[in-house]
Amino acid sequence: MALVVQKYGGSSLESAERIRNVAERIVATKKKGYDVVVVCSAMGDTTDELLDLAASVSPVPPGRELDMLLTAGERISNALVAMAIDSLGAEARSFTGSQAGVLTTERHGDARIVDVTPDRVREALDEGKICLVAGFQGVNKDTRDVTTLGRGGSDTTAVALAAALDADVCEIYSDVDGVYTADPRIVPNAQKLEQISFEEMLELAAVGSKILVLRSVEYARACNVPMRVRSSYSNDPGTLVAGSMEDIPVEEAVLTGVATDKSEAKITVLGIPDTPGKAADVFRAIADAEINIDMVLQNVSSLESGTTDITFTCPRHDGPRAMELLRKLRDKGGWKNVLYDDQIGKVSLVGAGMKSHPGVTAEFTEALRDAGVNMELISTSEIRISVLVREEQLDTAARALHEKFGLGGDKQATVYAGTGR
Amino acid sequence: MALVVQKYGGSSLESAERIRNVAERIVATKKKGYDVVVVCSAMGDTTDELLDLAASVSPVPPGRELDMLLTAGERISNALVAMAIDSLGAEARSFTGSQAGVLTTERHGDARIVDVTPDRVREALDEGKICLVAGFQGVNKDTRDVTTLGRGGSDTTAVALAAALDADVCEIYSDVDGVYTADPRIVPNAQKLEQISFEEMLELAAVGSKILVLRSVEYARACNVPMRVRSSYSNDPGTLVAGSMEDIPVEEAVLTGVATDKSEAKITVLGIPDTPGKAADVFRAIADAEINIDMVLQNVSSLESGTTDITFTCPRHDGPRAMELLRKLRDKGGWKNVLYDDQIGKVSLVGAGMKSHPGVTAEFTEALRDAGVNMELISTSEIRISVLVREEQLDTAARALHEKFGLGGDKQATVYAGTGR
Repeated sequence: MALVVQKYGGSSLESAERIRNVAERIVATKKKGYDVVVVCSAMGDTTDELLDLAASVSPVPPGRELDMLLTAGERISNALVAMAIDSLGAEARSFTGSQAGVLTTERHGDARIVDVTPDRVREALDEGKICLVAGFQGVNKDTRDVTTLGRGGSDTTAVALAAALDADVCEIYSDVDGVYTADPRIVPNAQKLEQISFEEMLELAAVGSKILVLRSVEYARACNVPMRVRSSYSNDPGTLVAGSMEDIPVEEAVLTGVATDKSEAKITVLGIPDTPGKAADVFRAIADAEINIDMVLQNVSSLESGTTDITFTCPRHDGPRAMELLRKLRDKGGWKNVLYDDQIGKVSLVGAGMKSHPGVTAEFTEALRDAGVNMELISTSEIRISVLVREEQLDTAARALHEKFGLGGDKQATVYAGTGR
Repeated sequence: MALVVQKYGGSSLESAERIRNVAERIVATKKKGYDVVVVCSAMGDTTDELLDLAASVSPVPPGRELDMLLTAGERISNALVAMAIDSLGAEARSFTGSQAGVLTTERHGDARIVDVTPDRVREALDEGKICLVAGFQGVNKDTRDVTTLGRGGSDTTAVALAAALDADVCEIYSDVDGVYTADPRIVPNAQKLEQISFEEMLELAAVGSKILVLRSVEYARACNVPMRVRSSYSNDPGTLVAGSMEDIPVEEAVLTGVATDKSEAKITVLGIPDTPGKAADVFRAIADAEINIDMVLQNVSSLESGTTDITFTCPRHDGPRAMELLRKLRDKGGWKNVLYDDQIGKVSLVGAGMKSHPGVTAEFTEALRDAGVNMELISTSEIRISVLVREEQLDTAARALHEKFGLGGDKQATVYAGTGR
């Protein structure tokens, strides 16, 4: 029998009415003849409320106990959905991450799934039951302590279960009905994509698309689990994320979409002595503080001064910490200065078609020139071009690129407010 | 090293401030050199809120899922107390009922503990950690499904852990600082008892004292675990519940206290044919409906009519259901009538001293006579006399008995509002 894994985000479960709606959708899927496994996030703001409670009793709650606390949220939502399913006349069983065999590393608050042994889920499916598995949580495979999976954890739980159970598809439900060629709030005629390859989705997720978390797409790609992005408020088929870019015939490869990102800051270190290892000092300091670096640019060295400049971007919320570190190292490194700029935005064009269309970079830069947008930094991959621009010009840049590459449709896209966890 | 198990009720944990106070008490106990295991109920009204959530998605939530939902409450409170302890510089580990090895029967919502295998708790204690165990919950020993223990579940968890870990004492903390000779709200000069035997405590709990749940006292008596009833708001040593009545020298045995109960209703079946088996029909019907019967009286049979009357009491909330059942059986049973009365109250006198004081029953009835209280039904055990009176005379009866048997002290007792779960 075909097996579907469905994941519902917190905003799809924020009230009793929404929970009943979700239950109806689940039962309808079961009635179509599918085996169904459901992964639910915590209801609405539950996780934030639990974090507030933790903060009220301890300034720095220990990770193990914070995980014990937070996992109550998914336990509650999954049990409630199971009850709602039961009241519709279908049979449901909810399982904690531990009961569903979601085994993880020991890192509390950000554990990785190392194995999934869903024997109890399989058994309940064989008895004709709808299975609910609490998302975002697992159990340390060595100590049997409860762990949480960090950002995007519920999506990852769903994909990992789909892989372990050999599901036909993993449906990710939120308040957005698919993957668009651009953010419809910025580009009104953005179009919903019917299908996108794993590589393209990974690139989009990496450069700012919030619809799927990078990590869950990586897991799905590695295990070849087709994902479908759907809305819990419509019957739209959404967007299928599946298949390798390599399988798309060259002639059919197209440009997929434009993504924007305002979450980064730019740091420039000026006057670094141009001798081996001096640039490495900068990146070692940032890496030791566990700050992720995204784009990097090293200027051509100045022959007169024998120094060079390095510019990089990092998450904006880590910016002040990075600056404090680098300012301390300034004299020791013999650097001239360290500059900070968080009024920047990143716009990216993604698509497998880039490989077979040599003129894309030229058209990209011309589109921005014609829109009066200055580029501060460029980085590229095989199927992506990203540039850093002034933050206030980001939307203009996105619209210009979307237009230039003919990604728009004839009608306005529907805009939904907010997204789930 | 001496081991103490402490149980805290929901009202002791209803806010961050109270949780921090409880944590300070726990850490202080640890610093005195004790190993400490703590069992917490859910915070304040959490359980009721979760029940409301369940009712909002399903009129009759399945028991398995309701247990999955409700157990989130204790998970939250125990994790928060662990965090608060951690913030005081001590080390804590919280465990779910399942992790602590609380194995139960399969009856969801009202499971019984069948075994406790607290290996992980023992291990953490040996590492010098304070252990927290979620009360009220366990795991079905066969299916590994999560179960809850029903009313008084957290007290029972604490006693069962104390027994399994061979603890020196199981302290039950609530907002009441001990066991009194009567409810201080009814009898202002009621005195706190320093010690009471298991049997006396069982009798008091059985006839209306709310301070300890019968079931936890039964468990403690069976395993000989001393319990201490204390307030989480004072340093009063409270009341020790320990030892057998048999060990009290006859000369020292006294009357322990007066208890009142307004939770029962009285049902009378008139004109039952006085032949073998006819009375049994009444009790079989009530038993099949899982309604508990407390006091029973069968009148001397009337020689003229060849019939008898039976009066019994049952929980008031089961009264209407019992009446519906019996009215249906009236014609078939050939009964004359079935009467219902829920304006009654039960007052009881308990004490091991009763065995060695033959005049107690006489003094008991004289006290009520002098107070103008009419007795409707009497039942006795070796160490208890209970009578049914009009509900509006219940407080008068309690005061008269308390006075007659000299149970009062010189000063007024402190009265606390509400009690924990």
